[in-house]
Amino acid sequence: MHKKRLSIAIPASVVSDTPHLREKTSKIGLIGRTAAIFRVDEIIIYPDNPKTNQAADMELIATLLAYMDTPQYLRRRLFKIKPELQYAGILPPLRTPHHPLDRKIEHLKMGEYREGVTLSKIKEGTPVDIGVEKPALIPIEQLAMDKRVTVKVTNVEKRVEVGLVDRMDISEYWGYVVTVEKHPLGKIVKGRSFDLTIATSRYGVPFADVAEKIAEKWKKAETILIAFGAPAQGLYEILRREGLNLEDFADFVVNTIPMQGTETVRTEEALFASLAILNMHHSFKA
Amino acid sequence: MHKKRLSIAIPASVVSDTPHLREKTSKIGLIGRTAAIFRVDEIIIYPDNPKTNQAADMELIATLLAYMDTPQYLRRRLFKIKPELQYAGILPPLRTPHHPLDRKIEHLKMGEYREGVTLSKIKEGTPVDIGVEKPALIPIEQLAMDKRVTVKVTNVEKRVEVGLVDRMDISEYWGYVVTVEKHPLGKIVKGRSFDLTIATSRYGVPFADVAEKIAEKWKKAETILIAFGAPAQGLYEILRREGLNLEDFADFVVNTIPMQGTETVRTEEALFASLAILNMHHSFKA
Repeated sequence: MHKKRLSIAIPASVVSDTPHLREKTSKIGLIGRTAAIFRVDEIIIYPDNPKTNQAADMELIATLLAYMDTPQYLRRRLFKIKPELQYAGILPPLRTPHHPLDRKIEHLKMGEYREGVTLSKIKEGTPVDIGVEKPALIPIEQLAMDKRVTVKVTNVEKRVEVGLVDRMDISEYWGYVVTVEKHPLGKIVKGRSFDLTIATSRYGVPFADVAEKIAEKWKKAETILIAFGAPAQGLYEILRREGLNLEDFADFVVNTIPMQGTETVRTEEALFASLAILNMHHSFKA
Repeated sequence: MHKKRLSIAIPASVVSDTPHLREKTSKIGLIGRTAAIFRVDEIIIYPDNPKTNQAADMELIATLLAYMDTPQYLRRRLFKIKPELQYAGILPPLRTPHHPLDRKIEHLKMGEYREGVTLSKIKEGTPVDIGVEKPALIPIEQLAMDKRVTVKVTNVEKRVEVGLVDRMDISEYWGYVVTVEKHPLGKIVKGRSFDLTIATSRYGVPFADVAEKIAEKWKKAETILIAFGAPAQGLYEILRREGLNLEDFADFVVNTIPMQGTETVRTEEALFASLAILNMHHSFKA
């Protein structure tokens, strides 16, 4: 059985109130950590301000989040030096199962999963760097070079052989993928048809009031989206600009921080609070 | 009736895994925001590592948290320039009711609360800077200079008069106080006798399993403590070093992040998750 697939959508403007790249990096670091702690499968970054060109912010967020999700041993091969990564050193490690610290080939176990990157192919198949002393081999298949792959160890005898797998088939949490969307949020959701869409807003109903109803839908859903707005403009406003009503767009519009003590709540703060609450309610029903 | 008083206890080592002051400042900024979003009344900082001298870290955390809680208009008078504040510029604003943006004396309303600092006393009483063009007066009372006070506007006629109030008597959220403790956590809690003490630990019971029991105690409690450990050593270990058992120390030991996707959860992350969940469950029973 496939796992549930949990996606979150965050606006490009999440970093726009932070002037310096170093603090933008800190903030994106927190978002990556939050996603991993609560086992998010996909982070969708969407443009929320048609008046400005948000391409650079989206690129920055996507690069840093993907960098965080990449095991240390693959980073140098997959990421060229670029200005966005200037402060990547301050990004906190995810410490997820797909970032193994063991680099010894003799410790590899049959059936173990690893993240890898394909090397130049040979006639027996495709060698792949899986973070141990020597490359493993994907037999027969001839894959393009420098592609990130998820593999399962199928042979640890004479030489290490691995096979391609779909990360959604792994029962442990296996990190997130990052999707950069050019379309506005309403259009994205229409095109993707999630089984359950939850929008967060301080004008929504308190989560506790609809917790049971959400739980019912959650149980049956295979694809779930939780959408977040920006402090400067919430989801009601963002969708209104597309001519959409938030209630039509989402199955539930919930407030996860009733009686907030501060005038505004930032996106990364709402993200943490909402995922913590949803995780507490649904983690055993996954 | 007095409000409930919500205290949180965080270990000094919360900033010890972050090498640079700038990122320490970011992290403390997040802790201050979290406290304000969830209307925390007191942040207790406790030493959690007897093997090292944590005085500098505790001083840093306390200074930055107090700085965040201080309205902008009082900061220059209350905080001398010191190295801990080098990156104070990146601290996010709290945007709480006790940080009013209106600086006009003619907009002051009778009964309005303000944070102020006492100026040199005169025979009519003590002038106090409350962030408007001219000082207000606390009549008769002769207070020491440069003391931070919470006041209520009692006269807006010829001259502005204000009276001292206890911040716990204000129904709006009025920020937090910071307490630096020299004693280890077990001793602190013994000396303070909170009506309800909740400890967080990944080895605790899932919050959902004891939510109802906590709610019962929460309703009656006037003073509540929520205690957090460090990622390098959880509360079980921290208390064991004092010869204490966590279960004896706390009314409840709860895990607020069941099925965490990452190997460790940092203190500031556990803080956000736990307060979000407790707030959702208890905000309307406050």
